[in-house]
Amino acid sequence: MAEALHDVARIAHAELLTPKPDESLRFFVEIMGMEVEAEEGGSVYLRGWGDYLRYSLKLTEAAQPGLGHMALRAWSPEALERRVEAIEATGLGQGWTDGDVGHGPAYRFTDPDGHALELFYEAERYVPPEHLRPSWRNQPQRYVGRGAAVKRLDHVNVLAADVRTNRTFVQEVLGYRLYERIELDDGTETGAWLSLSIAAHELIYVKDAYGASGRLHHLAFWVDTREECLRAADLFVDNGVYIEAAPSKHAVAAGFFLYGYEPGGNRIEVTTGGYFVYDPDYEPVTWTAAERARGQFWGVHTIESFHTYGTPPVEPPA
Amino acid sequence: MAEALHDVARIAHAELLTPKPDESLRFFVEIMGMEVEAEEGGSVYLRGWGDYLRYSLKLTEAAQPGLGHMALRAWSPEALERRVEAIEATGLGQGWTDGDVGHGPAYRFTDPDGHALELFYEAERYVPPEHLRPSWRNQPQRYVGRGAAVKRLDHVNVLAADVRTNRTFVQEVLGYRLYERIELDDGTETGAWLSLSIAAHELIYVKDAYGASGRLHHLAFWVDTREECLRAADLFVDNGVYIEAAPSKHAVAAGFFLYGYEPGGNRIEVTTGGYFVYDPDYEPVTWTAAERARGQFWGVHTIESFHTYGTPPVEPPA
Amino acid sequence: MAEALHDVARIAHAELLTPKPDESLRFFVEIMGMEVEAEEGGSVYLRGWGDYLRYSLKLTEAAQPGLGHMALRAWSPEALERRVEAIEATGLGQGWTDGDVGHGPAYRFTDPDGHALELFYEAERYVPPEHLRPSWRNQPQRYVGRGAAVKRLDHVNVLAADVRTNRTFVQEVLGYRLYERIELDDGTETGAWLSLSIAAHELIYVKDAYGASGRLHHLAFWVDTREECLRAADLFVDNGVYIEAAPSKHAVAAGFFLYGYEPGGNRIEVTTGGYFVYDPDYEPVTWTAAERARGQFWGVHTIESFHTYGTPPVEPPA
Amino acid sequence: MAEALHDVARIAHAELLTPKPDESLRFFVEIMGMEVEAEEGGSVYLRGWGDYLRYSLKLTEAAQPGLGHMALRAWSPEALERRVEAIEATGLGQGWTDGDVGHGPAYRFTDPDGHALELFYEAERYVPPEHLRPSWRNQPQRYVGRGAAVKRLDHVNVLAADVRTNRTFVQEVLGYRLYERIELDDGTETGAWLSLSIAAHELIYVKDAYGASGRLHHLAFWVDTREECLRAADLFVDNGVYIEAAPSKHAVAAGFFLYGYEPGGNRIEVTTGGYFVYDPDYEPVTWTAAERARGQFWGVHTIESFHTYGTPPVEPPA
Repeated sequence: MAEALHDVARIAHAELLTPKPDESLRFFVEIMGMEVEAEEGGSVYLRGWGDYLRYSLKLTEAAQPGLGHMALRAWSPEALERRVEAIEATGLGQGWTDGDVGHGPAYRFTDPDGHALELFYEAERYVPPEHLRPSWRNQPQRYVGRGAAVKRLDHVNVLAADVRTNRTFVQEVLGYRLYERIELDDGTETGAWLSLSIAAHELIYVKDAYGASGRLHHLAFWVDTREECLRAADLFVDNGVYIEAAPSKHAVAAGFFLYGYEPGGNRIEVTTGGYFVYDPDYEPVTWTAAERARGQFWGVHTIESFHTYGTPPVEPPA
Repeated sequence: MAEALHDVARIAHAELLTPKPDESLRFFVEIMGMEVEAEEGGSVYLRGWGDYLRYSLKLTEAAQPGLGHMALRAWSPEALERRVEAIEATGLGQGWTDGDVGHGPAYRFTDPDGHALELFYEAERYVPPEHLRPSWRNQPQRYVGRGAAVKRLDHVNVLAADVRTNRTFVQEVLGYRLYERIELDDGTETGAWLSLSIAAHELIYVKDAYGASGRLHHLAFWVDTREECLRAADLFVDNGVYIEAAPSKHAVAAGFFLYGYEPGGNRIEVTTGGYFVYDPDYEPVTWTAAERARGQFWGVHTIESFHTYGTPPVEPPA
Repeated sequence: MAEALHDVARIAHAELLTPKPDESLRFFVEIMGMEVEAEEGGSVYLRGWGDYLRYSLKLTEAAQPGLGHMALRAWSPEALERRVEAIEATGLGQGWTDGDVGHGPAYRFTDPDGHALELFYEAERYVPPEHLRPSWRNQPQRYVGRGAAVKRLDHVNVLAADVRTNRTFVQEVLGYRLYERIELDDGTETGAWLSLSIAAHELIYVKDAYGASGRLHHLAFWVDTREECLRAADLFVDNGVYIEAAPSKHAVAAGFFLYGYEPGGNRIEVTTGGYFVYDPDYEPVTWTAAERARGQFWGVHTIESFHTYGTPPVEPPA
Repeated sequence: MAEALHDVARIAHAELLTPKPDESLRFFVEIMGMEVEAEEGGSVYLRGWGDYLRYSLKLTEAAQPGLGHMALRAWSPEALERRVEAIEATGLGQGWTDGDVGHGPAYRFTDPDGHALELFYEAERYVPPEHLRPSWRNQPQRYVGRGAAVKRLDHVNVLAADVRTNRTFVQEVLGYRLYERIELDDGTETGAWLSLSIAAHELIYVKDAYGASGRLHHLAFWVDTREECLRAADLFVDNGVYIEAAPSKHAVAAGFFLYGYEPGGNRIEVTTGGYFVYDPDYEPVTWTAAERARGQFWGVHTIESFHTYGTPPVEPPA
């Protein structure tokens, strides 16, 4: 990991697949409060008011919901080169693409579980059009306040048949740091919370209860306050958005959450809170099954679907 | 006062005059988040998402900004009769009107300072159209969440040349209870906070610094949380709404505030907080000039215009 | 009801019985943040920082947890007389006591379900000692900020074998107004939310799942913000207080809640939010069993014990 | 800067000098809610509930208030070596100390303005005593909730005679990144907001209005929510702590603030909010004097002392 450290800066955006593109678009614009920054090749590129790159969500029509790909931004051209070399050494590399709306050439690869990833460096900073120009120049965009008014994509939570293999891959090859994990009594790792920064989690691997591969658990979008999560829940209720888990506080990573399903079937989180890890020698917290049985931070027990449902949906094993 | 007590239930709505009706309407709909419930006779009737009568704001074009009138609702037909009799006895009664959108016959009168008031009993409860039907039936309307998303009109603050005379009038004739007041060393009363309920203030008289009559200091709209006041301030900034007083906490009445000017020139407050007065023998708190010189609750000193500006605007006395 | 209306002002205090007086006292002082205002006759009298009478909770040792009594304050000496007469007419009156710490003569009676109630008028306003003197005189006491720092008692929720009989009693005899209720398909009323003021609930009757009499569901203490409920939940967790229901929003009455058990076994709520009923002709909302099956406002389903547990605890019927 | 990047992890703690050690200690324990972790050599070492190193504040008696020193933690032993070498090359190095409570050998140096700094790597992770053990193991300490209950030291704001020279020094020698700055029309740099992480500011240089050297503007302590800043203001008021700037939102860096003076005379901030900088090529925002004249985010104009007062206090230049 040491050599990968600091070479990757962030998750720049995620591509979400939806079988109901119009309804999903309406959800992200009207309910989540995002802006359409571009439409191209059948995809719509959406941004939160706090994104300073052009967008953090790419919405693409597909037969099944799920994660199209997740795009990471390298820290520098040299860092990009180093990481591509390391990826290629794993045999999981797929080669370069010309880039996409808002960013330059990207190297495409997968994690061991098969999730599609891209890594690029060149990116366009957002320039707001007149009607979205903010009053203060250190804000990338005007605060429109529509719907849940999410600020930006915060983290991506994917399912994997084998958590340990995948989180080790992103640690060693991409420089992620591990802050928390769950390990059952038999040694199976069922969850891993990873980050490239002081934020408590940016990428999460959770064991796929059905043993499937390449699935998405949820995309999480940031708001600055817990009050905004509560307000988002009111908006979900009055707009008929299915709430899978009402606002509460996670035990793991201590983030505040609201989970719902967007019309295409993907789980979406509105999140805030958590803690910061400023020290280089932070010892990951390992949770036992017994501890996890206590529920969330305030004792809430999440419903079964939270532990089994992912996109694309699959049948439970016989 | 004893006989007037409990005869008047509430301020049902206020009529605001504006020389810029289109811009004012856009402000109340887009920035304050109200809904247009009716348009009639050149006026627009607006409601917050928590109003269970049809509206709480009537917006009317006029050459000058200011308060058109303030409409009170009596507790019962008998209470209405009793109050009209009492008003007539003061010589300030003007007679009955046929009513207006959403309410029945109203008795028109003025307070001693000349502000127009109406008192009625019959009122229509709001029935939401399909697109505003709430998910839970104890909510009068869907929570749309647009702009500051104010819930309802909260209180009305008027200026008066002589505060004591006017607040005594509403105490004796309308049954208002006095919770706080300011009295200068020379015995002049410069402010009075009155209520018909446990809420810390519903009607406020403040001395008109210019000695004028019939002017409005501000209309205050309620939000449930201080976070919504802070969020409203962000919306004001990014929409170019002039903020006269940034969010903070009042010393008198302890309410949380944000003050701005709507395009027509009237001062508008977004408010929450305060305290409840449950007891019948609450002793009004009387503040001295020395105490008021300490500023607001956390020491903020409001700017000069807050103590002089009202609508319609008038010239300072020579 | 009409003649009883406005004769009773509020619930002045509740007496809580506890088999663990020392631990209960520590809970209310350290975790809930109340102050000891007096100790007399084996009871401790506690106040929130926003109580302007001397106290709102009386804590008394007893073999079993439960509600000792609930004390109501009449609006005036005349109102007290009128209500006592009305109570006596029901046959549920028990006669006068000399009063208690902080209040004068009280008339003792029960509701039909057997809960002990008292009604008085004379009461002492709180005068803070030097170390609790607030900076602003419209606050009854300094904000100490210890623990959950509850402001005052907010409402009392009792269980009753027959809800309809009891809520009709408090409506007719005490002037309570009914704002919401639950009625099963067979016509059984299983819950009633009542108030003496614009506050959405001050007294709640819920059907005793075990058919017992005179039991308490919970006492609710007010905080001004939802953030304080969330903070209280953190304090409960770290102090080993059992959380029965983590912070969320009620469907009925729309209040924000946190439920836990104090060491004596009584259920305690930390609450805020809700709505105000300003109009005299508010039509109570009647919920069906089907609607209640949707859970709380954001879909949370409260655990079984919430619907069965009360104090004193009793055995489920065979 | 490129070679220094990522070599320094964070500000581990700050040492505050106070002429009133007992009163200052009481302030940080009772009002700010910190815990005493150690006392040694006449200093008291204090921690917030979210510090995972042992402490973040060292309080030391002195004739004058001010900053004793600021201690930075290197990312690794190798990074420490590299930075010491770079510091020595500037001629501002002073040599090694044996360390202090909770950390190993530290290299002592000053910035060009003369503020004392230390850099170390070895540090002890906090192990809570029984009475402060948290319920969840990913929290370093129980949430006690006393006073403002600050979580940890957040940032340090120092005054400097020449801002540009000092911020360039910490960029080049320590790897700080510059996110925002103020530049007057004559080219003078009057403020610089720097960070080692995605947090919008960790170290701030502001021009000393009196041209003095080595002075402190303020230490800022973190809380997770704006509501906690508002609550802290209530506690300041009722405890007689001087509030220099009531809660509001900064224009620069967009953080939420409350400023007061601790009994020793040092300015203290309770802060939250702001934004995150995830990208490596973030272009610093440069503010003009004209833009700064607009006041804070919501238009609040900070009082004169905010721009002149620092510790130790000095006389204005003649």
